Amino acid sequence: MSSPPSELHNRVTLRCGTDPRWLPNALAHLDAVLVDHAHCEKKAAANALSLLQAYPEVPGLPAHMARLAREESGHLARVLQLLERRGLTLGRDPGDPYAQGLQDVVRTPAAQRQLDRFLVAAIIEARSCERLALLAGALPDPDLRRFYAELARSEDGHQKLFLRLAARVHGEATWPRLEQLLEAEAQLLRRLPVRAAIH
Amino acid sequence: MSSPPSELHNRVTLRCGTDPRWLPNALAHLDAVLVDHAHCEKKAAANALSLLQAYPEVPGLPAHMARLAREESGHLARVLQLLERRGLTLGRDPGDPYAQGLQDVVRTPAAQRQLDRFLVAAIIEARSCERLALLAGALPDPDLRRFYAELARSEDGHQKLFLRLAARVHGEATWPRLEQLLEAEAQLLRRLPVRAAIH
Repeated sequence: MSSPPSELHNRVTLRCGTDPRWLPNALAHLDAVLVDHAHCEKKAAANALSLLQAYPEVPGLPAHMARLAREESGHLARVLQLLERRGLTLGRDPGDPYAQGLQDVVRTPAAQRQLDRFLVAAIIEARSCERLALLAGALPDPDLRRFYAELARSEDGHQKLFLRLAARVHGEATWPRLEQLLEAEAQLLRRLPVRAAIH
Repeated sequence: MSSPPSELHNRVTLRCGTDPRWLPNALAHLDAVLVDHAHCEKKAAANALSLLQAYPEVPGLPAHMARLAREESGHLARVLQLLERRGLTLGRDPGDPYAQGLQDVVRTPAAQRQLDRFLVAAIIEARSCERLALLAGALPDPDLRRFYAELARSEDGHQKLFLRLAARVHGEATWPRLEQLLEAEAQLLRRLPVRAAIH
């Protein structure tokens, strides 16, 4: 078990801020963003269960992932309530090119794959945290603002959790790989179009 | 939308009771049963998310499955706490021949597959309810007894939920297929050995 080398490593520091066109577009197509958000929470819950299934031997991981799956499923239930109040239905998941792009850089050998899965999860949570906080600061409806501020805080906790898991199991190997994945994430964002979606 | 034809159809009526050798064996190997139980809760949560992913268009299904995933993940977290207190670790999921045997009778065409997935989920919940209630009635520890009694009630609610979903979408086709699947389940139980596991 290795401690993070500095304060800087307590959380993911994203390489770039979100494109300034993202927020006005998201506010203009809020219904689409809410539907996408429900799918994101579903995938976050499913990913927590998948990590628990894959790595039951990592000390503490099963308990953390069970609580995470519970929390993300709870968020999903609340976003679905929001959809229902707005007369929206969930529809089929069209897939998330951002999350898929990050999955594509996950390496195959078992130990590397585990580190990458933890770090990709941390980065997705960090990016979600940034975007949900942007929504929380700009939404006209005060209830929605509060809801998104709460979820942003929650995602911030999750990125720290995944980073701690990575550092605890993989020690010093964590930090250079995190830098590589952060660079890959920044490049991915530059490649992808701005969408009315969380990512 | 079709109403169940009779009171009998408000819940799954299993064709056979659990083998009388199951309970003494489970009590004698309680640690193994608890570990298996954690895996069952994980699979129940994952199945709820999988049904939500597969059938977002079924009215009410996404909200029900999100709440179910939250509840099952919460049960999973509590069973993992139990394991930790007893010095047990989760370990890799060896698979569940009972659940796999029921998956094998799920038909392929889309509408039949959906009905079968709802009914198989209802039957697994009903069998889990029976077994957890047997544990609740026989465990020496009063805290564990209360815990298992609570979970048995919860599983009873889930089997009714899956049966309602099936009847609401598939109407009268639900009942003859339920009878076939109940017969398949009874045959499967006769074929499988008695294990220190929930199923």
